[in-house]
Amino acid sequence: MPDEPTAAATGSSGASPSGAEHTPPPLPAGAGDPFSWTVRARRDRRRAGLVRELRPRPAGSAALDLAGNDYLGLARHPEVTGAAAEAAHRWGAGSTGSRLVTGTTELHAGLEAELAEFCGFEAALVFSSGYAANLAALTALTPRGSLLVSDAGNHASLIDGCRLSRAETAVVPHADLDAVHKVLDGHDGPALAVTDSVFSVDGDAAPLPALAEVCRAHGAALVVDDAHGLGVLGEGGRGALHAADLAGTAGTVATVTLSKSLGSQGGAVLGPAHVIAHLVDTARTFIFDTGLAPAAAGAALTALRVLRREPGRSLRVRAAAAFLHDRLTAAGLYAGRPDAAVISVRAPTPDDAVRWAAACRADGLQVGCFRPPSVPDGISRLRLTARADLDEEQLASAVSTIERNAPAGAR
Amino acid sequence: MPDEPTAAATGSSGASPSGAEHTPPPLPAGAGDPFSWTVRARRDRRRAGLVRELRPRPAGSAALDLAGNDYLGLARHPEVTGAAAEAAHRWGAGSTGSRLVTGTTELHAGLEAELAEFCGFEAALVFSSGYAANLAALTALTPRGSLLVSDAGNHASLIDGCRLSRAETAVVPHADLDAVHKVLDGHDGPALAVTDSVFSVDGDAAPLPALAEVCRAHGAALVVDDAHGLGVLGEGGRGALHAADLAGTAGTVATVTLSKSLGSQGGAVLGPAHVIAHLVDTARTFIFDTGLAPAAAGAALTALRVLRREPGRSLRVRAAAAFLHDRLTAAGLYAGRPDAAVISVRAPTPDDAVRWAAACRADGLQVGCFRPPSVPDGISRLRLTARADLDEEQLASAVSTIERNAPAGAR
Repeated sequence: MPDEPTAAATGSSGASPSGAEHTPPPLPAGAGDPFSWTVRARRDRRRAGLVRELRPRPAGSAALDLAGNDYLGLARHPEVTGAAAEAAHRWGAGSTGSRLVTGTTELHAGLEAELAEFCGFEAALVFSSGYAANLAALTALTPRGSLLVSDAGNHASLIDGCRLSRAETAVVPHADLDAVHKVLDGHDGPALAVTDSVFSVDGDAAPLPALAEVCRAHGAALVVDDAHGLGVLGEGGRGALHAADLAGTAGTVATVTLSKSLGSQGGAVLGPAHVIAHLVDTARTFIFDTGLAPAAAGAALTALRVLRREPGRSLRVRAAAAFLHDRLTAAGLYAGRPDAAVISVRAPTPDDAVRWAAACRADGLQVGCFRPPSVPDGISRLRLTARADLDEEQLASAVSTIERNAPAGAR
Repeated sequence: MPDEPTAAATGSSGASPSGAEHTPPPLPAGAGDPFSWTVRARRDRRRAGLVRELRPRPAGSAALDLAGNDYLGLARHPEVTGAAAEAAHRWGAGSTGSRLVTGTTELHAGLEAELAEFCGFEAALVFSSGYAANLAALTALTPRGSLLVSDAGNHASLIDGCRLSRAETAVVPHADLDAVHKVLDGHDGPALAVTDSVFSVDGDAAPLPALAEVCRAHGAALVVDDAHGLGVLGEGGRGALHAADLAGTAGTVATVTLSKSLGSQGGAVLGPAHVIAHLVDTARTFIFDTGLAPAAAGAALTALRVLRREPGRSLRVRAAAAFLHDRLTAAGLYAGRPDAAVISVRAPTPDDAVRWAAACRADGLQVGCFRPPSVPDGISRLRLTARADLDEEQLASAVSTIERNAPAGAR
């Protein structure tokens, strides 16, 4: 639901946590420093080429961005930024408290009602992030004796949700329905299967209808993280659950993010009203967190309305993804067929992937770069995200930049 | 760091997850509903008077707010809301990606640099919430074999951080230094003590200098959640660690929130540069979350500058808290002496507390209401938060509303 990492470091320069581009490596911590182990740990990561580096971007970057998750091009849409600004002026810069104290405005309530209605669910609950929404769903919806069945390719926030819940967790091989079936068969008690709808590394879709069928047959609940599906899949971008006729069905809960297709910040859980009420009463990341800032709520609500008015955006982003895939494949590169807006392109080695991404960046194209251990199968990739607001010329130029900089073994 | 709950329900009306004020109770889920147990669970909570209810507030509420955490009155400060609006226009409504991909703007980097400098730390790292910052600090700073020593009164996000870390956790009685000493004495390996600086229920302060001494003597690290200290305690509101001469010392890490004194949204970890670099490389709630929205980063940065320019705000909020305490005590009520901006007032029973808060609300005064199980000692309270932007007349009026509505046994 939230974002995925790009191992964006070169291994050559020091940490720049506060934004300086090339600060020297941190001084060795003294003997009396209980955190001196972090210096050794970072040295080891640097040797392995696994140091990550923050690269603060300017407001007016001219680079073509195929790395972010602003799938529909709404983060900078003037109606959306205008709604953020208006909400800040009208409601304040922050929500001032927990959702249960002073942090629920009428704006939050309106966003929840429209989001639920749009996606086809009875109710919705907004969180300060998709991460928090996932932690809430998995911890609050697994009563004593529960079994969690989690796809091996699931996002970190779902994995952390499994860890934080008191439920026993069975991790099943990626998209392996037989394994889900077997694990559920062997369990007596409440069970909940959890999966991403679109997996963030390779952009492939989960077999939702069949998975839901397996869950139904075993009386198990299903939680689907539709972070990469909302705005992209389903009629008018209503998401993967809507597309699979699962939205609003008993036993089905979706989590979404407001920070990808909706161009804002935050997350939400969608489901039956009694499930949402249960989260209000018991979900710790709901109860003990400050409510989402009004600007983010206002921006997400207006983005939703733009999407509703312009459903073609979801078609355009999928067409853009298909175009990228077809052109990259035609150029002899190994690009995974995208089920939504994410395309992965194989690199021969981790170092090749890092250099490839850096060469694209030098040529004005931002792409993601995934290396172990962030990839489940050990294969390094470039990760591209399609956007609805790019024209064919921009997409073709991106392909040609990627092609031109491809390392020897990439074809 | 994030907010605390107010068990704000009356037990009489149904769930209103999407904001409708008085929806009927949810329909019983069908036999085939894997979530039917949530209906039973809610029924049990309703019987126990523990159902929570969202109360969406309008933009122009006339109520006097002593329930939120906008301690310095900056959430609606025109410079702060203006900065939020400007950031949305300039940088977009969302940050578009993980901090390591496209989610770090120069605005984020600037906020981190100024926040660290203001609080007296070498470096800072901004998260989408204080909850996420706490999860990051506790999971990423406890290497294998670690012991976490956690105060029994700690905030839910710290408790969840302990649960999510792989470290063994020893929960020690509230503010009990001997217990910390004993537990650390009995452990061989890395250790980290964690505490709130100001506890959110009673508003009492942790004995930071002495606790740091115990940690130092045992080579243990110290993580302090200064959510309720930043902006309120220390010179010019630099926080509890600055006040205790602990800011910037080896082995000391602070977490703060941007959603209380700074009137915005988000959280941060402050510490030595090598510790912050370690979080960039390894903290899952940093790596796998979308970056804080530019509007929230911009608002927090401007709020910080207002506080720097007007350091008297931190004095005024403490004076307001002392005023509330003195007047309430003079009226014969049991109000805890506030170490920062939070004042708790004892109620005879949970039901009394609920009715007392509701009566205040009816009289135009918002106060928090804490009942079991949200209070560690089983004592129900009203929870008041002082604000720097209230004048003596407003504070006196609040006291008189509280006094007028006090239940029989409250004196």
